Formats: sequence, structure tokens, C-alpha cells
Amino acid sequence: MEEPPRYKFGPYKIDAREVFHATPLSYAMVNLRPLLPGHVLVCPKREVKRFADLSSDETGDLWVIAKEVGAKLEQYHKASSITFAIQDGPQAGQTVAHVHIHVIPRKKGDFEKNDEIYDAIEVKEKEMKEKLDLDVERKDRSMEEMAHEATEYRALFF
Amino acid sequence: MEEPPRYKFGPYKIDAREVFHATPLSYAMVNLRPLLPGHVLVCPKREVKRFADLSSDETGDLWVIAKEVGAKLEQYHKASSITFAIQDGPQAGQTVAHVHIHVIPRKKGDFEKNDEIYDAIEVKEKEMKEKLDLDVERKDRSMEEMAHEATEYRALFF
Repeated sequence: MEEPPRYKFGPYKIDAREVFHATPLSYAMVNLRPLLPGHVLVCPKREVKRFADLSSDETGDLWVIAKEVGAKLEQYHKASSITFAIQDGPQAGQTVAHVHIHVIPRKKGDFEKNDEIYDAIEVKEKEMKEKLDLDVERKDRSMEEMAHEATEYRALFF
Repeated sequence: MEEPPRYKFGPYKIDAREVFHATPLSYAMVNLRPLLPGHVLVCPKREVKRFADLSSDETGDLWVIAKEVGAKLEQYHKASSITFAIQDGPQAGQTVAHVHIHVIPRKKGDFEKNDEIYDAIEVKEKEMKEKLDLDVERKDRSMEEMAHEATEYRALFF
């Protein structure tokens, strides 16, 4: 018998190997297609669409985790800034109906125009959704890459 | 004798009339030049540059306030989504060295390309800095406009 998935991201099952940090309320996972090195997602474990659906405890926990993840990945990737963003609802670019914080370590010159990154977030969200819709099983190579990255990040939290 | 300012935003004094919601740790203020109706800023009262400089209590409080502010302003402005973003550090577009969350109610078609808003955030941050540098006293008309807006928003929290 298969075990139930420990993590869900909207309608998608998330393999525990992609997850590198978790609390009782939140988890942090690597990206299927990161925009930049260290671009990860931090999510509440409870599947809610809108940020306002989170309790105060969930909200605090989610952002304390995002803050820690940002600080560790900024240092790990020798970056100097971080973009934190929630696209909260479809008109803000949300395509997966499960609250998630984009945490993106930033460096000088990483994008030619500093905020092209936000266009890119939206495009990648759509790609991710298509990818997940079309290829639920995913490719082993991609999982191995992600698991490897997650293993490196997991070590930052000990 | 002048009273000390109750709110500071980096090096700038913020008039209490611009502030529409506050807790012991955080405050929410209207913008000198909002990008879209309801574009406001939520800040910790303590002046820190980077998000990682906040304590867990400050982090939780800041985001619980931002969540409430977003929900109320989304409804008030008949919007359907919200953009939440922190430009954390200069390479992420931060120009005022005091942590602040951009809370921006979003509607279908408010920007032709959905995420042009992020370019605009950066441009406006620079304009705000220049404006504040060049015109510390500010114009009464602008303050009256801001105070009027803040008064409307303040009523949402009672």
C-alpha cells in the first residue's frame, strides 16, 4: 500500500524529498523550475487559496519560516538581497490555488531590469501548472535534481 | 516644543495623519504616490533595514496586520486579488532602508501586463525617496489628500 503524501500543493502531491524545512504548520520546498538559484516556495500545510484564509498562528509561522529560509539561502547562494512575494488571487498572478511565498535570493545584475523577475514568476507559475498537469509522474532526473538541492538546503537548518 | 514624531520610515518622519492602523509593533500608512487605489505600506515600528532583522514577534505581527489590511482594502476598493511584496535589500529594489510590505489591491486589467506592477513599485520607491529628499516639508494638499484617505481606511478597523 502506498503511503499518503505528506505534503500537498493545491491539487498536487509533493514528494517529501523536495521539502527541506517544515514546522507543524508550514513547509519549504525547492522549485520544479527555479527562476534563479535558491528560488523556493514556502507554503502553509493547510490548503487554502487566499492569504486571508490563514489563521494568525499560520500567518506568523509561515513568515518566520520564510524569513529564516531567505536568510539561509541568501548566504548559501552568496546573494545580497531577497525578493519575497505572494501573488494572492488570480488578478495578482496566482495560478496554483494554495497560498505560497516566493523566496528569491537576489544579486546585482541577476536580471537585466531588476524587476523582470516578477514577470518571470508569473510565467513560471503557469509553466509549473502545465508541467504538473501534463506530467503528474514527473521525470526521475528532475526529482533527483530537486532531491539533491533539497538535501543541501536541509543541512542549513541543523 | 515640538512633539517627537510617532512614526518613522527610515530617515523620514511620518505624520500620524497618514497612518490608518497600528499595533505596538507595526503600523500601516497610505502612500505618497500610490500605484493603484489602496496601495499602502505596512512597516515595523522599529527601524530595521532587512526582513531578517525582525524578531519572530515583529514578523508575525507585521504580516497579520498586512493580511488584515489587504482583506479590508480589497473589499473597500472592490478588487479581487492582492499583491504582497517585500523588496528586501537593494538588489531586490529596496530604496528606503526600513522594512516595508507593499500591499496592493488588484483587479482584472489594472495593469495591461499583470506584473508591470513590480516595475512600477520600484520606480515609485525611487520617486518617493527623491520626493522626500527634496521636499521634506511636503505640500499641504498632498497631506490633506493622504489624511483623507487614511481617515477612510481607519474607519475600516473599527
